[in-house]
Amino acid sequence: MLLYPEPLAALIEALRRLPGIGPKTAQRLALHLLHAPAGEAEQLARAIMEAREKIFFCSICGNLTDVEPCAFCRDESRDRSLLCVIEWPRDIMAFERTGEYKGLYHVLHGALSPMDGVGPEDLRIGELLARLRRGGVREVILATNPNVEGEATALYLAGLLKPMGLKVTRIAHGLPVGGDLEFADTATLSRSLLGRQEI
Amino acid sequence: MLLYPEPLAALIEALRRLPGIGPKTAQRLALHLLHAPAGEAEQLARAIMEAREKIFFCSICGNLTDVEPCAFCRDESRDRSLLCVIEWPRDIMAFERTGEYKGLYHVLHGALSPMDGVGPEDLRIGELLARLRRGGVREVILATNPNVEGEATALYLAGLLKPMGLKVTRIAHGLPVGGDLEFADTATLSRSLLGRQEI
Repeated sequence: MLLYPEPLAALIEALRRLPGIGPKTAQRLALHLLHAPAGEAEQLARAIMEAREKIFFCSICGNLTDVEPCAFCRDESRDRSLLCVIEWPRDIMAFERTGEYKGLYHVLHGALSPMDGVGPEDLRIGELLARLRRGGVREVILATNPNVEGEATALYLAGLLKPMGLKVTRIAHGLPVGGDLEFADTATLSRSLLGRQEI
Repeated sequence: MLLYPEPLAALIEALRRLPGIGPKTAQRLALHLLHAPAGEAEQLARAIMEAREKIFFCSICGNLTDVEPCAFCRDESRDRSLLCVIEWPRDIMAFERTGEYKGLYHVLHGALSPMDGVGPEDLRIGELLARLRRGGVREVILATNPNVEGEATALYLAGLLKPMGLKVTRIAHGLPVGGDLEFADTATLSRSLLGRQEI
């Protein structure tokens, strides 16, 4: 005998497929959705369908968008001579929250990872080169993640872009603001020593 | 300027309304749903709608069901002389997982809680009394939660049911199996002493 009526079991099963959602959480979310005020559950179902239908990748930068080109690429007030290369669309949000960056973006949709079978042809590197060849960009900031795959991708891209006569920079490594020397890992601490600047 | 295109922002917002889902998790889930394999996101949206449409409360026991009466109330193999009174439909699953209980259930849909304005008339107590008056039940097991509200509800129900000539029992309190005396709270330890049994 099924513990739950079939439509509820199906909902729990669908929720369990989400990342980081275990069986207990799936059950809790399903029961919440069942008893949520009128409209709330329907709104979530509709939002899922609408996002799937309306969101696609900007053909220029690869960001998520519902208009072509995306809001960043269309924004004439941004500095078109600066291009920040990142792994994922969510990284754009991280930079935008700082309020410090006013250039454009290019999303690779991943990083080089031979272990996972991700090579240069799987990333939006061809689009990046074509975009740079169209001219106007002065500096490319390589802002892939500070991990093995991200570093490898940054080095690979630097090798491609420097011969094009572009200024190629990498985001700085060092101690996180508000961090504690005591708890810093040795790799970060070494990087912060090597990257020391006069004050 | 919106950080995310509107349909994506709406999805994140809808996910944030779920219990225990913060802004970061909502963003992660939304991006997962956007990029999930074909069918997965649609299946979740459909499962939400179907559960909302097809699931209702059993008119007899108050459990969640998609048929009337529910599978438990229809199951002729269960012991109809035993009735387990619980707070929420999810508590049925907890008992069923033990495989020890073969009687029927009655879901109160909450516990007495004057602080939250929940009185006897807000729980399915009238339905419980009517059900017991129809006869056939020999023992009522009060299995409300072992907290202040659950205890108060059990005491209140015992006061109503005992005069009806029914055997009324309360689930046992004590140390959890696999627990550690060292970490037991004093209230649980006192209860386990008071409830000691000869071996």
